[in-house]
Amino acid sequence: MRHLEEKYVGKHLQMAPQYAPSLRSRLAPLLLFLQTGFIVIFALYIEIDSHVKVDGTTFRNFYPEFQDVNVMVVLGFGFLCTFLVRYGFSGSAFNLLVSVVATQWALILNGIESWYYRGKIRINLRSLIVAEMCAASAIISVGAMLGKINPVHLILITLLEVSGFVLNDWLLQTLLKTPPLNSIMLLHIFGAFFGVMLTWILYRKGSMQRFEKEKFDSKTGLFSMLGILFLWMFWPSFNSVLVDNRIPGRKLGAVCSTYLALAVSAVTAAAMSVLSSPKGKLNMIHMQSSIFAGGVAVGISISVVHQPWEAMTIGLAAAVVSTIGFRYLKTHMQFAFYCHDTCAILSTHGLPGLLGWLAQLLLQIRDFDDHILAIRFAVFHICAIIITISLSLVMGIMTGLLLKWNFWRPPQDKKCFDDQAFWEFPHLAVRK
Amino acid sequence: MRHLEEKYVGKHLQMAPQYAPSLRSRLAPLLLFLQTGFIVIFALYIEIDSHVKVDGTTFRNFYPEFQDVNVMVVLGFGFLCTFLVRYGFSGSAFNLLVSVVATQWALILNGIESWYYRGKIRINLRSLIVAEMCAASAIISVGAMLGKINPVHLILITLLEVSGFVLNDWLLQTLLKTPPLNSIMLLHIFGAFFGVMLTWILYRKGSMQRFEKEKFDSKTGLFSMLGILFLWMFWPSFNSVLVDNRIPGRKLGAVCSTYLALAVSAVTAAAMSVLSSPKGKLNMIHMQSSIFAGGVAVGISISVVHQPWEAMTIGLAAAVVSTIGFRYLKTHMQFAFYCHDTCAILSTHGLPGLLGWLAQLLLQIRDFDDHILAIRFAVFHICAIIITISLSLVMGIMTGLLLKWNFWRPPQDKKCFDDQAFWEFPHLAVRK
Amino acid sequence: MRHLEEKYVGKHLQMAPQYAPSLRSRLAPLLLFLQTGFIVIFALYIEIDSHVKVDGTTFRNFYPEFQDVNVMVVLGFGFLCTFLVRYGFSGSAFNLLVSVVATQWALILNGIESWYYRGKIRINLRSLIVAEMCAASAIISVGAMLGKINPVHLILITLLEVSGFVLNDWLLQTLLKTPPLNSIMLLHIFGAFFGVMLTWILYRKGSMQRFEKEKFDSKTGLFSMLGILFLWMFWPSFNSVLVDNRIPGRKLGAVCSTYLALAVSAVTAAAMSVLSSPKGKLNMIHMQSSIFAGGVAVGISISVVHQPWEAMTIGLAAAVVSTIGFRYLKTHMQFAFYCHDTCAILSTHGLPGLLGWLAQLLLQIRDFDDHILAIRFAVFHICAIIITISLSLVMGIMTGLLLKWNFWRPPQDKKCFDDQAFWEFPHLAVRK
Repeated sequence: MRHLEEKYVGKHLQMAPQYAPSLRSRLAPLLLFLQTGFIVIFALYIEIDSHVKVDGTTFRNFYPEFQDVNVMVVLGFGFLCTFLVRYGFSGSAFNLLVSVVATQWALILNGIESWYYRGKIRINLRSLIVAEMCAASAIISVGAMLGKINPVHLILITLLEVSGFVLNDWLLQTLLKTPPLNSIMLLHIFGAFFGVMLTWILYRKGSMQRFEKEKFDSKTGLFSMLGILFLWMFWPSFNSVLVDNRIPGRKLGAVCSTYLALAVSAVTAAAMSVLSSPKGKLNMIHMQSSIFAGGVAVGISISVVHQPWEAMTIGLAAAVVSTIGFRYLKTHMQFAFYCHDTCAILSTHGLPGLLGWLAQLLLQIRDFDDHILAIRFAVFHICAIIITISLSLVMGIMTGLLLKWNFWRPPQDKKCFDDQAFWEFPHLAVRK
Repeated sequence: MRHLEEKYVGKHLQMAPQYAPSLRSRLAPLLLFLQTGFIVIFALYIEIDSHVKVDGTTFRNFYPEFQDVNVMVVLGFGFLCTFLVRYGFSGSAFNLLVSVVATQWALILNGIESWYYRGKIRINLRSLIVAEMCAASAIISVGAMLGKINPVHLILITLLEVSGFVLNDWLLQTLLKTPPLNSIMLLHIFGAFFGVMLTWILYRKGSMQRFEKEKFDSKTGLFSMLGILFLWMFWPSFNSVLVDNRIPGRKLGAVCSTYLALAVSAVTAAAMSVLSSPKGKLNMIHMQSSIFAGGVAVGISISVVHQPWEAMTIGLAAAVVSTIGFRYLKTHMQFAFYCHDTCAILSTHGLPGLLGWLAQLLLQIRDFDDHILAIRFAVFHICAIIITISLSLVMGIMTGLLLKWNFWRPPQDKKCFDDQAFWEFPHLAVRK
Repeated sequence: MRHLEEKYVGKHLQMAPQYAPSLRSRLAPLLLFLQTGFIVIFALYIEIDSHVKVDGTTFRNFYPEFQDVNVMVVLGFGFLCTFLVRYGFSGSAFNLLVSVVATQWALILNGIESWYYRGKIRINLRSLIVAEMCAASAIISVGAMLGKINPVHLILITLLEVSGFVLNDWLLQTLLKTPPLNSIMLLHIFGAFFGVMLTWILYRKGSMQRFEKEKFDSKTGLFSMLGILFLWMFWPSFNSVLVDNRIPGRKLGAVCSTYLALAVSAVTAAAMSVLSSPKGKLNMIHMQSSIFAGGVAVGISISVVHQPWEAMTIGLAAAVVSTIGFRYLKTHMQFAFYCHDTCAILSTHGLPGLLGWLAQLLLQIRDFDDHILAIRFAVFHICAIIITISLSLVMGIMTGLLLKWNFWRPPQDKKCFDDQAFWEFPHLAVRK
């Protein structure tokens, strides 16, 4: 550790006078342009939906859950991304940037239909929650590229991913009459496949040799655990917030099911992590990725999960799939398909998401008495996943190709996973 | 610090290839067996209680407070346990394991009566909250053994402690007609005495010389502060969530009383920490243990505290008792009674709990006009504490004896308080 | 970093046997005296306001928002203050002390009027929230002095700042009939100017040379980010909690406006931080200070912000002002006016606060049809800010003069920004 630190300090003093060209000439103008653009659009078309009952359902029913979702998006995902030993500042702060840009953009895009018919977009807490969920989808995609792109890339990915996801949502709801709850919950699958395509297009030769700084230490592991625990604790809010609470017990059911699925996932992730480890030990990053797999899977199938044991079984299966995926798939993806997926979003969100989709199919078919209806449902359900995956793959590839353009000044391999590329450390420099 | 790090790295490189036998051959099968067992029981007997009013009291009244309790149990206690300089991963992740296993087990045990009469157990948010409180009781016990046991021990302690606590609850409610609120709040006393007995039975000679790694540093102290602050902030939810809100002002009273007691505890803990320190300085771990003593004491007496000043006086006394207990009792316990209590749960939960019990006795007697009733209450109240302490001591000793069995492969002394015994550090090893 | 650690350990071993005289002879008696005094006052005059409707508005409407505010005050500001590399324990723990002392003191002071007319002070959740906001005002002032005073100073500042702020509140409400919401939100301005005056009076020559320990590192920057994110996420609760929810949509409007202003601030802060940096990089402390500038500004003008774009424009302006203030003003203040403002509260709370005040003036005047009313409003509004600033300057100077008294044993320059001056590190010492 000592020589590492020497190197660290040494490298720092050398790097300190360097200049981060992509930020001043690309990021700052882009952000200011976007932000003033958003304000203009908001000024012209968006107003607050005050036609709600006094102390009515719209506000009172949502506020605590809105805050839970907000905490998950801003803090949960933000601190999840701090596990890299020298990328904590970027991990947490860029996540905030992504989430606020994505939320504003999603508020606008989600309102286009209402703008088309009424000329005005009315926003309320529900719109904010849906927008934050779109932001979550962008954050998942970005997780795959964590540490290997600059903030300009980040913003571009955010804008395109959110556009793609909102388009997908609209397609599913318009073409297939998918209920909003079901189509929004596909965010895990959309985000994961979008992100994996990005890593494929933007593959760096340098990933073949392990990046020197791509590791965690005992403190950053704890920061990341903090983020994970916030995700884990508030996942019941995430899954239940859009569930219609006019049907007795539905919302309670969603909360209890998600909680139990998460509990089972945590236990299973620990067991599977030990079983799949060559030394028979637990792996922190491993557990962190898999303890909320059950939440992802149950979230997608929340509309048809009625009994606790169904949720628990889904949670168990999701944790098994996710743990095994993490242990074997991550390395395979890299060597076989040239996909270097920093946060392992494929096994964290992609596979459990697909499992949840499958569980929804099976459970829903079981509930139908009529075979015709069941087949009709199955066809629609399969179409939904095909549309989602195709769109995410296509959008991911297109975004990736756009980002390959050197105009955006990608960071060099040796500056990957390093805060020094983007952040001032003035107090350290003073030390000389 | 430098030579420590050399030793650390040196030791690590040596230890890396080692194998953690207790995990693969004991922990993983135990967890998978338990988890599938739980799922089977849930599938057969447990369903969600959907007979609640639409947007009715059961859900809406409880959800934010449920989340507060959930945050306390998962994050608060979890990060409280990260203060040990090399035991942060285990501290936070094992706490999660304990809490999810305990919650599922408590949901089953608490439903036995309902299963006996109706064949089905119906769960709702209140059941989840009660189950999390049982989990809190297990977590308190485990705190005494932090760093000196392996995860297999953890799970066994969890199962037995929760069984004992639920049995105690049932005994008090059946034999002595104790109201559920009062009997559940005894969790601090039950957990503390159970844990102390464990430390006595499982005493290690190695504790006589101070464990080399049993210390905190400036960063782990902050992680632990984070956990403590979450406990401190949400303690009003913990104490008030089960208070009947049909009586006007009771719940508000519980919240304000707990908040004020906690505030007084924080101030008093700082003053007492300075006064009892040989160098006249503050002690971080010390303050962390005592700032929520008032919450513990007021929690136990919450049913009879009506005025803010009563809560504040209890808070002041609890902080004094807890600070002095921490400063003098912890060392004495170790040398005189061979109890090495890592988190000092006796002075953090045990003593303030007994003080709260005493305060409840005095305040309740004052409220009675009738002497006969007062004496009857006092007898029942004293019986309750005798049953609780006896049961916790007996269960603690039995559990300790079970754990002494070498079959569970206890960690060696030199591996105590060390994440390396249970966790992979693959990224560190790569560095060579 | 290595030689720093040697120095650190070396210095520590030297300092370990030292004695912190100000704590035992000053702090502990002061805290115990204050706390028993508070308990006596509470016993004589304060009771819980149980005259609320069953499950009525007073409790149910406030509890989740009360907890959000509580989290901001205790955890948000507490961890914000942990950014100094060797002052984390003090930063978080002293913040807790300040907040609990200030809350109790504010509960008493805010009740004086009610005590005068009715002989009793009735507290409920609203009183607690208002008291925590007064505490926030004290915490802001203290931020300017972070690391340069001892805890005795802290408590004195707290008591005087809260007294001044409550007096200011009472003056505005009595003389100018300012609505309570508007006068309370001036806490940012009052706290900032009070704090800046303190730094002016208590200026240390040592500040001219940069304090050796006044810097952050990659881990403390993350702890501080954690606090900031909690402030950022729960700011909508802070701004909306006192908004009257009997007018449809007002509270929803306050939440959405604050959220959007914060989002815009975050984006703008990133862009401005890059633009104003000599190396074109982001600055962590910089961003941390400016991402919630929009929340401060919108909070002060919350009563007249009706459209999202107004809030967003205010958020943009506030972030620009705050970022530029931080980059240029902090150093200028130090060299030109001898004000060493550790947390840069002038640019974080002061300038955005003034901007919010201006926005309120302009927006309110726009809303008036009648010129006479508009002019009358403007006069009152200008008087309000003059009274607030004058009172905060005067009280700040008086408090500063009181603290100059050597009786309080100020820490020496070399012990500034150092936990070692106040905290035991027993486990470190054992290592020898």
